Formats: sequence, structure tokens, C-alpha cells
Amino acid sequence: MTYTPTSWTLDRPLVDVPSAVDAELDRFFHDRHAEIDDLDPVVADGVDALEQFVTGGGKRLRPLFAWAGVRAALDGGGGTLSGSTGPEDLLRAVGSLEFIQACALIHDDIIDHSDTRRGRPTTHRRFEASHRGNGWSGDAVGYGESQAILVGDLAFAWADDMLVDSGVDAASLARAREPWRKMRTEVIAGQMLDIALENSGSEDPAMSEKVNTYKTAAYTVERPLHLGAALGDADARTVDLLRTAGREIGIAFQLEDDHLGVFGDPQVTGKAAGDDLRSGKRTWLVMRALATADRTDPAAAARLRAGMGTVRSDAEVDELRQIIVDSGAAAHNTGRARELTDTAVDALRTGHLGRGIVDELVAVAEQLTERRS
Amino acid sequence: MTYTPTSWTLDRPLVDVPSAVDAELDRFFHDRHAEIDDLDPVVADGVDALEQFVTGGGKRLRPLFAWAGVRAALDGGGGTLSGSTGPEDLLRAVGSLEFIQACALIHDDIIDHSDTRRGRPTTHRRFEASHRGNGWSGDAVGYGESQAILVGDLAFAWADDMLVDSGVDAASLARAREPWRKMRTEVIAGQMLDIALENSGSEDPAMSEKVNTYKTAAYTVERPLHLGAALGDADARTVDLLRTAGREIGIAFQLEDDHLGVFGDPQVTGKAAGDDLRSGKRTWLVMRALATADRTDPAAAARLRAGMGTVRSDAEVDELRQIIVDSGAAAHNTGRARELTDTAVDALRTGHLGRGIVDELVAVAEQLTERRS
Repeated sequence: MTYTPTSWTLDRPLVDVPSAVDAELDRFFHDRHAEIDDLDPVVADGVDALEQFVTGGGKRLRPLFAWAGVRAALDGGGGTLSGSTGPEDLLRAVGSLEFIQACALIHDDIIDHSDTRRGRPTTHRRFEASHRGNGWSGDAVGYGESQAILVGDLAFAWADDMLVDSGVDAASLARAREPWRKMRTEVIAGQMLDIALENSGSEDPAMSEKVNTYKTAAYTVERPLHLGAALGDADARTVDLLRTAGREIGIAFQLEDDHLGVFGDPQVTGKAAGDDLRSGKRTWLVMRALATADRTDPAAAARLRAGMGTVRSDAEVDELRQIIVDSGAAAHNTGRARELTDTAVDALRTGHLGRGIVDELVAVAEQLTERRS
Repeated sequence: MTYTPTSWTLDRPLVDVPSAVDAELDRFFHDRHAEIDDLDPVVADGVDALEQFVTGGGKRLRPLFAWAGVRAALDGGGGTLSGSTGPEDLLRAVGSLEFIQACALIHDDIIDHSDTRRGRPTTHRRFEASHRGNGWSGDAVGYGESQAILVGDLAFAWADDMLVDSGVDAASLARAREPWRKMRTEVIAGQMLDIALENSGSEDPAMSEKVNTYKTAAYTVERPLHLGAALGDADARTVDLLRTAGREIGIAFQLEDDHLGVFGDPQVTGKAAGDDLRSGKRTWLVMRALATADRTDPAAAARLRAGMGTVRSDAEVDELRQIIVDSGAAAHNTGRARELTDTAVDALRTGHLGRGIVDELVAVAEQLTERRS
């Protein structure tokens, strides 16, 4: 594989990962366009749609955690690198996670019938609009969804291509197989559970806990850390430490996200006040509030149950918020997020990894789970 | 990887591939169930849906061609195998193509709003029915499509898992990367083109030719042969011979399929007489007939154009069939399929590969492209 050498090095801090990954993604698309655009304008347009999606935003959180895993492997984690694997190869390998995320979000947007993402039309709406713009007859909505399913599939295939063709040596790739394999199955399993949860009307907090475990914690934090650690040939205790801490940070992140979905300031979140209440999202926070209020204040539980997905005014939102606060669920949710983060931070701080990577990882964890401040 | 030794050997004939692949797919699902079922009944049900789809039928055509590629590599094709790669490892590697096919068909069925496949409800209809059966409120159709998108994604991930974890040695897997990478992108590109073709109302035979090239020829024959040849470490001229012949056989197969879609006997095809005319499928055969009739008999062209997708009675179907025959397109289509097959067969017969594998490959090609007889 040919590439322009960059200044990327093995000790680059986590905060540098997003822009470096952006550059690698740009290069990947440049190469794919050169390979594919002659095939047909329709296919080139599909690649454009994926490129706009992938390069149009995102915090690059998964590559960042994977890079943390590489750094941890090499800084006290018992790992070494093959001489044939350079820092840019590893950067491309961790950057591939953005294509998994693109597939997950593009398909998720179809599933949720979402109109916009990051302030732009979702991928299915983009193709629906081009169907109309072309003046074609027939089912524009169906056309949009169909092309978006395929663009998501392409992203899923290209995730694998970007990892395997990253330039990382064969032994490192072989070690990366387990987290890669598990992560892909877990994120799909988490999505299946999430959809079943929404459709079944289940109020079982354990079901929500599973969704958080697989759809968020494993996929966003634990497995990316695991992938990076595997690429860097970390020893078993390092993998254990990172996976456990990653799961805790990931769940805390989701609980905090759920808190923001109910109590967040629209100025900060960019969403309507009480967005999850308006949309009826069945989070652990809400399920816990329902379960508690059922025992302590059945009238309040009934009001919350009826209001989920139906409330419109700010006053109604405030009323449901108060029920959630009064049930004790809000404090419990926040306390649990805090506790999980503290446990992860303690384990990292008292563990065997180098001070540098631990400080950076702790800073990211704190930032993710204290986004209100 | 542990497996029960079977009697599979490197010289096993192509006709033995389907049942041997079935056994490997069964084993793969057995292992996945053991790994995943405890996660949640919802996820276990998703795995069941995929298993029912994959094991519920299919000619295993792609593994068969890939096995032909392995055999050709070893029988005159300049290839050798690493001592660490056993026949069963290769069988698993070629069997993985059935998961790509499962993803393609499950997503295709959503796109086409198909109700049945192989006499059973399609995957999205299966989940739609379970939504209703559970008495859940909300959008059963949307739920079915959402879960089916995810089951297709799971199949796509597992294709890769079955290939990479097949037991085939790392060098062989590295050689398999190019056909694997190209094939996945090509089948998705072919689908994108197909959907655009249907929706645009294009009458350009060149567009249909591209769909045939990528969606059928490359994906069904050329790349599976290429994949097998790469796994068997075939030399460059063998790869070239197999790819070229595979492309020709693949296009001939599609042209013959299109012929059957218009002229096939319902007793043989299992579909309504003139099924492609009733559904308005825009095949190369029909586009060619339109283009020719536009010049020679505009009234007939107008009748064919108006009848595509709207005809209902057998008499109307017969009328459109006659227009296609009179245009010369039917004879041209059949002649072209014959010519492509003959070219491929000649190249294989006069080439450098062993007589045994050539005879078997020719027999499969003849069977695929002469299904009327």
C-alpha cells in the first residue's frame, strides 16, 4: 500500500486522533473514487453519499478509544509492534471503525424514519430527494430507503477493507479478529434488542440495561479499546483492565446521555427540552422511574406512562420531569453513572499502565460522563 | 478451530459441494447459537431467522464455483497449498459466500417488497408476523423491515467471519483479499444500478448490461472462481482464464434467465408465464426489443412499452412475447447467450487446466445456460 508519510507517531495524544482519522478517511475515499467512479454515475453517487456521511461530522470516539488501546498496549501493557507496522497503518486500522458506525447510523436512520442527521438530510432522504429531483415515477420513499440500505452495506464492507488493508502486519490483524468479530455481532445484537424493546413496550429495566451494554458500552468503548490493545499485542491483564473499565465508562456515558435526553438544556444538547419524553424513548432512567413510581405513587406512574411519546408543551415536559425526580430515579441514574465512572477511573489509576495514557483516558471518560458541566 | 474431520478431500467433484457446504453451515450456526443464544431470546430469534434463511434452500452456486477455482488452481493452475490448510478449511472458506448471498437476498426482498422466497415468508414478513403474533402495538411492517435489515447485516459480518476463521492459512487469506474485496463492492454496486434502472425507467440496454455484469456475472461466477483460484494460489494466467470464462458464463446465465422470465414454461420455472412482463422487469432482452421495434415497428414498441408491468391475461402476455420475437431480440438474446457460453467453453477446453476440472466446469456452465432443455 502506498501512502504519503505523515507526522503521525505512536505517542500522539488522543485529542489528535479525530483530525488524523479524518485525513485517513479522506484518503480512503480518494482511492475508492479512483477505483469505482468509472463504473457508473449511479455508483459514484452512492460513494458520494457515503463520503458525505462519513466526512460530514462525528466525534471519532471509537477510533479515539481504539488508539487509547494501542497506546496502553505499548505503555505498560506488555505490547510490542512488528517492525513492519507503522503508526499510520495503526491509524488507518482504528479509523476503520468509522465505517461500522456509518453503517449502523445509516441503517438506524431508516429504521427510525429520521429526516435529518447532523443538520443534513439522512441518507435515505437524500436519495428520496434525488428520485423526485430526477422526475422519476414510482415510489420515491422506497427508492431512498433501498439505496440507503445499500450505502450502509457498502460502509460495512469498507470497514473491513480499511482495517485489513491498513498495512498492519498479519499477526496483529489476527489478534484483532476477536474484538472485531465480537464487536460487529454485538452492535447488531444491540440494535435488534433496541428495536424489540421499543416495539414490545417492555418496561423491564434489565432489557434496557442489555441494550446499553451491547449497543453503547461494548460497541463504543469496550471493544474499540480491546481492538487497539489487540493490535498493540497487549497482555491479558491489560485487555481485561481496558475491557472492564471500557464497559463501565460506556454504560456511564449512556446513562448520562439518557439524563440529558430528559433534563438537558436545549442550548447544550441541540435538541428540544425533554426530547426523550416527547419521543417516548424507553431508557433505563424512565423504566426505573416507572417501576419505582408504580410502588410509591401509582397516579404519577400512570401520568408518566401516558405522557411518554405524547407530551408536547414545555409545561407537560416539566411535569414528567418532576415525576422522574420525585421517584428517585433521576438521582439514582446520575449516581450510578458517577459510580461506574469512579470505579473505572480508580481501576485505571491504580493499575499497571503508564501514567501518560491513563491521564488521557481518564480525561476522556470524565468529559464523556460530565457533559452537563 | 475445532472440527469433526469429514471425508472431504481436494479432488471432490463440484456436484458434492452443495451438501458439504450445507454441513459446514449447520456447524457454523451450531457454534454461533452456543455463543449467542444466552445473550437474549430476541437475538437468538434473529439468529434463527438467519439460519432458516441460509439453510432453507439455495443451489450453493457460488461455493461451487469457488471450489472449482480451488480445484483448477491445483489441477494445472500452478497452485499449491500450505501444509497447514486442510480440505475442510477450504470448504468453509468457499461456504462463506452463502452468507454474502443471504445478506443480498434478505435486503433485496425488503427492497422489492417480496412476500415469499423459496415458498416461505421473506425475512421481513417473518418479523412482521411475529410483531402481530406478540400483539405489540405500532408499526408491524416497519418492525419487520428493521429486523430484516439487521439480520442481513449480521449475515454480511458472518460471511467475513466464516472466511477468515475458516482455518485457511494467513497467506492464502491474504491472496483471497482482492477477489473478496472486489466482489463485495461489485454486488452492492450492481444492486444500486439495478434499483436506479428500475426507478429511472431507463431503456438503455447498456445500463442493463452493467447490472448483469456486476450483479450476476461478477458476483455469481467470476469472483467466486477468482476467490477459489486465489485460495489455491493459482498463477496469473489461470486467474485470467477463469475470470474471463466466468464473466461470459455469468452473463449467459443471466440472459438465459431473462429469456425464461419471458418465455419460460411455468411448469419448469415455478413462476407465472411471462413473469418479467407482468412485473415490468427491465431486462436486456426487453430493452433490446424496445430499441429495435422503435425503429422497425413503432406501434409494436408502443404496445410493448405500455404492456410492461400492466399485462394480466395470458393472451396479453402472448402478444408481448410475439412482439419480442418479431423484433429479433429473442433470437439475438439466445444467440448471444450461446455464443458467450461457447467462447467460455472453448477457452477452458483449449486452455492449460487439467481435463477433470475443465469437464466438470463445462458441464455446470452448460447446465446453467441451457435450463430449458
